[in-house]
Amino acid sequence: MAEGEPDQIPDDGLTTRQRRNRPLLAVNTGEGKGKSTAAFGLALRGWHQGWSIAVFQFVKNGKWRIGEEAALRALGGVHEQTGAGGPVDWQIMGAGWSWSRKQGSEDDHAAQAAEGWAEVKRRFAAQRHGLYVLDEFTYPITWGWLDIDDVCSTLADRPGFQHVVITGRGAHPRLVEQADLVTEMTKVKHPFDAGQKGQRGIEW
Amino acid sequence: MAEGEPDQIPDDGLTTRQRRNRPLLAVNTGEGKGKSTAAFGLALRGWHQGWSIAVFQFVKNGKWRIGEEAALRALGGVHEQTGAGGPVDWQIMGAGWSWSRKQGSEDDHAAQAAEGWAEVKRRFAAQRHGLYVLDEFTYPITWGWLDIDDVCSTLADRPGFQHVVITGRGAHPRLVEQADLVTEMTKVKHPFDAGQKGQRGIEW
Repeated sequence: MAEGEPDQIPDDGLTTRQRRNRPLLAVNTGEGKGKSTAAFGLALRGWHQGWSIAVFQFVKNGKWRIGEEAALRALGGVHEQTGAGGPVDWQIMGAGWSWSRKQGSEDDHAAQAAEGWAEVKRRFAAQRHGLYVLDEFTYPITWGWLDIDDVCSTLADRPGFQHVVITGRGAHPRLVEQADLVTEMTKVKHPFDAGQKGQRGIEW
Repeated sequence: MAEGEPDQIPDDGLTTRQRRNRPLLAVNTGEGKGKSTAAFGLALRGWHQGWSIAVFQFVKNGKWRIGEEAALRALGGVHEQTGAGGPVDWQIMGAGWSWSRKQGSEDDHAAQAAEGWAEVKRRFAAQRHGLYVLDEFTYPITWGWLDIDDVCSTLADRPGFQHVVITGRGAHPRLVEQADLVTEMTKVKHPFDAGQKGQRGIEW
């Protein structure tokens, strides 16, 4: 089976073990479905490894993720009760970041995004989680709410062993350049094209 | 937000409600990562809706899915204990289908795939599950182990309200034609290219 076998050995001075165990920066981008869904699927693997999982939803409306949120929170509950898997922390921008005491800033999405990113940076520094899902994180970058230099250098310098998965359309070229794993999801066919609307259990 | 809005209303004689609530046949294909991972992410949504979830892994080696399997089984356990979400049934070809009493057929993958598909057909007829993940199901079709006519007519005629997600590279053109939602995952960049090997929590 060719899967899992490297095509070539890079001249980077790392041992195979070091290279194998490098923390990953993954980007799921493109116009198709499955960018976030695949990220949450990856979180299932991380949970099973006992990693602390953090999800930061950089979206105003969290409706589209309630199924994943409920399931991952349930897995966090399983961890608390039985010790299996890892803990799960799920943060939603639209509902207000849990650590934030600011009031009345619900409509200032740029400020909210900056607050969310500042917290991610604090957690990187504290090496708090094993896996961070930064959901829809490409948009605050695209819209200029976050500085791409700051994002890239922070990701490059994050200490220890912290995996990061970033989702969203139109990933910044420098993010794609820096990432270890980049997947583009392309829509081949979608039921909305045939007049179907989003439905419970499928779209959210 | 344009998401969730149909582009056009088809002339299919269905009401919007009927069209909205049509059971979905989805195909995740392409050379990139995330095909199965996104399918398992979709299973999280279905679980949250209280659907009965069935996963049929049409692969010899289930190692690459142990994290998802453990997490989804844990969610099935949450359902049993608290009533939240739905039940989960996870079947692996390589380990032997749980309902099969045949011995010594471990090496006959064609026969195993046919057995798995026969069971899926029985469950369709019994309307046993709300969501079926037929993982890596494109391969037994590609290899001629399953008849594409039989697969397509069975899927088209499945009764009631049963969603199906099929994953794997090289989906048969007729499967793509018949599916409601088709997403192609394309590899833009992969750590194996840089000599990195598959690692725990990321690849499995």
